[in-house]
Amino acid sequence: MPIQQPNRVDTVDAAMQLALSLAARGPARDPNPQVGCVLLAPPAAGGEPRRILGRGFHRGAGTPHAEAAALADARADGADVRGATAVVTLEPCAHSGRTPSCADALLEAGVAEVVYAVADRNPIASGGAERLRASGVRVREGLRAAEGESLLRVWLTNVTERRPFVTLKLASTLDGKVAAADGSSQWITSDAARSHAHQRRAEACAILVGTGTQRADNPSLSVRGPASKVAAQPLRVVMGLRDVAADAAVRAQPELFVHLRTHNPAAALEELRARGVRHVIVEGGPTIAAAFLRAGLVDEIDAYLAPILLGDGASSVASLDIGSLRDANRWATESVHPLGVDTLIHLVREPQAASAPSRTAGIEGVAA
Amino acid sequence: MPIQQPNRVDTVDAAMQLALSLAARGPARDPNPQVGCVLLAPPAAGGEPRRILGRGFHRGAGTPHAEAAALADARADGADVRGATAVVTLEPCAHSGRTPSCADALLEAGVAEVVYAVADRNPIASGGAERLRASGVRVREGLRAAEGESLLRVWLTNVTERRPFVTLKLASTLDGKVAAADGSSQWITSDAARSHAHQRRAEACAILVGTGTQRADNPSLSVRGPASKVAAQPLRVVMGLRDVAADAAVRAQPELFVHLRTHNPAAALEELRARGVRHVIVEGGPTIAAAFLRAGLVDEIDAYLAPILLGDGASSVASLDIGSLRDANRWATESVHPLGVDTLIHLVREPQAASAPSRTAGIEGVAA
Repeated sequence: MPIQQPNRVDTVDAAMQLALSLAARGPARDPNPQVGCVLLAPPAAGGEPRRILGRGFHRGAGTPHAEAAALADARADGADVRGATAVVTLEPCAHSGRTPSCADALLEAGVAEVVYAVADRNPIASGGAERLRASGVRVREGLRAAEGESLLRVWLTNVTERRPFVTLKLASTLDGKVAAADGSSQWITSDAARSHAHQRRAEACAILVGTGTQRADNPSLSVRGPASKVAAQPLRVVMGLRDVAADAAVRAQPELFVHLRTHNPAAALEELRARGVRHVIVEGGPTIAAAFLRAGLVDEIDAYLAPILLGDGASSVASLDIGSLRDANRWATESVHPLGVDTLIHLVREPQAASAPSRTAGIEGVAA
Repeated sequence: MPIQQPNRVDTVDAAMQLALSLAARGPARDPNPQVGCVLLAPPAAGGEPRRILGRGFHRGAGTPHAEAAALADARADGADVRGATAVVTLEPCAHSGRTPSCADALLEAGVAEVVYAVADRNPIASGGAERLRASGVRVREGLRAAEGESLLRVWLTNVTERRPFVTLKLASTLDGKVAAADGSSQWITSDAARSHAHQRRAEACAILVGTGTQRADNPSLSVRGPASKVAAQPLRVVMGLRDVAADAAVRAQPELFVHLRTHNPAAALEELRARGVRHVIVEGGPTIAAAFLRAGLVDEIDAYLAPILLGDGASSVASLDIGSLRDANRWATESVHPLGVDTLIHLVREPQAASAPSRTAGIEGVAA
């Protein structure tokens, strides 16, 4: 697959943007992180744009890491990478798994400088920057770190929290209702919002609802519309103690159906992790949303708000055991998108929460 | 006050944009509409930009209308307006009040063409276009009509509905709560959102809350912060049957305080209209919001949404007697603004409602 891209860049920052766009071409549902790498020729004396010697991205577990792919790309062109700058979206690994350590590969190739966006928090793969520095390579961390973190958010949660990344989807009226007094809820949001939600489903490994929503709405939890051209449909997960009827829409493809007989979000995530789920979208209803929020097991929220008022009806989130405003469940607004007549507000954990030391650390994400 | 602006424009559309910006310089709380006018020289044979002969806007009841001001501006420059195009944001009036009819003034001046944004729906002033056409003037209606309607929304409601224009302000969490379980509500929204709300107060004639909100929050309902440099503070209105304590903050300036002892929104608006109120912001709580919504007496909604979830607590809107989703209270999204960490969604009546024939028509807005 030829990569049509510029041959020169003016700045290392431009190279990082290129590396980020390369990274995004890797598979989103893979156990390994999406990583991109660009190799730049040493700066010329005249200050002209630097030549790109090689490009690479990681195509998934069992294939070369991005750095190895970029080095191979440069070698295929007969380029000399000695003295080059490697611009990578994630800290080069110091761990030899199915492939050799990237730090060693860059050292052997004679690279003089490494710039990366995000530090590797995976304990058995981290340490690449240290090894490179110890061998005299200039190392710079944190260039476009926010974009790198955003791209790697699922994987970072997998390796630091040892659980799937959790997106909570809320789709409500402006006064926070998810159904009218008689229970009618189809559809509160517009075609544009629902189509966007299907795109989000197509990026996830599993879609989860509670038995209440399953019984009330009989959802199929499939990816439909243009987004359905995905490699695989996500798992369809119903959580709760009540039975799921034999003719439930969610059972349409039995091999994609999972019933988790628990009320405990942590237990549910543990079981999903064992099934290889790296990203689950929790789609309701209010009881399930509240359970994940109370457990602190929500990483991001997609709140779709329709320009509708209902007054009566069920609220989007059941009790959070919050008595006073000072104890409110607070989020950081990452972006706001008009979607047809609706509005999507994308929320992430507040910075202090995101930068807190992770409670656990595991070995996911180093399969390659 | 000299008006520093371009001397030529390429298009009639550019002249209308100029007229709209002139109109906005007029007083927002006046009984008369904000109107702007630009007089363009006849098109030149070579197609070069057209010269601006005069500009004017209406400075409030008792002063010249925008068309008269523009004609005076042109005369002061010694310009010949015969054959000119008058570009006006509102249809020239056909009614001689304190000033002569604008249609007649334009005819007498020898203007050859009139382009306006919004038709005058005031029955005793409308008919200007007809009179101009009957005298051989080319007339075009509807250029930048949406912008014109937006600028004139308060006045249009005043003259067609014979009542103040009503903005409903909702400030809630993402799950639609306006207070936590213990009643705490200060502050759900951020400084940026509250500062924006004070700017909105500064543009209104009155701020209205129910006795419940008055008792729970003891609000002052004043304009504070940078927006407080307004010509006059708005009226502070409490609606409901219960008494308002003698030491209530809302009584700080007795001459600005009004207690409306009614539960009926139409009766409240009638009393406010009698006091000269043209624009009232209804700021809560849930019972008052629901009462105005049920009565169909809300013209626009400013929904400030904080990135917070509460689960429990009072919802922003009390019962609307809506049983099923198909009967939901639906609005059109006009704009979405991030405000600090919060989001402001501005809603207006759905197009079919806005274009419905007005139920009543009155004589407000023609004082000049």
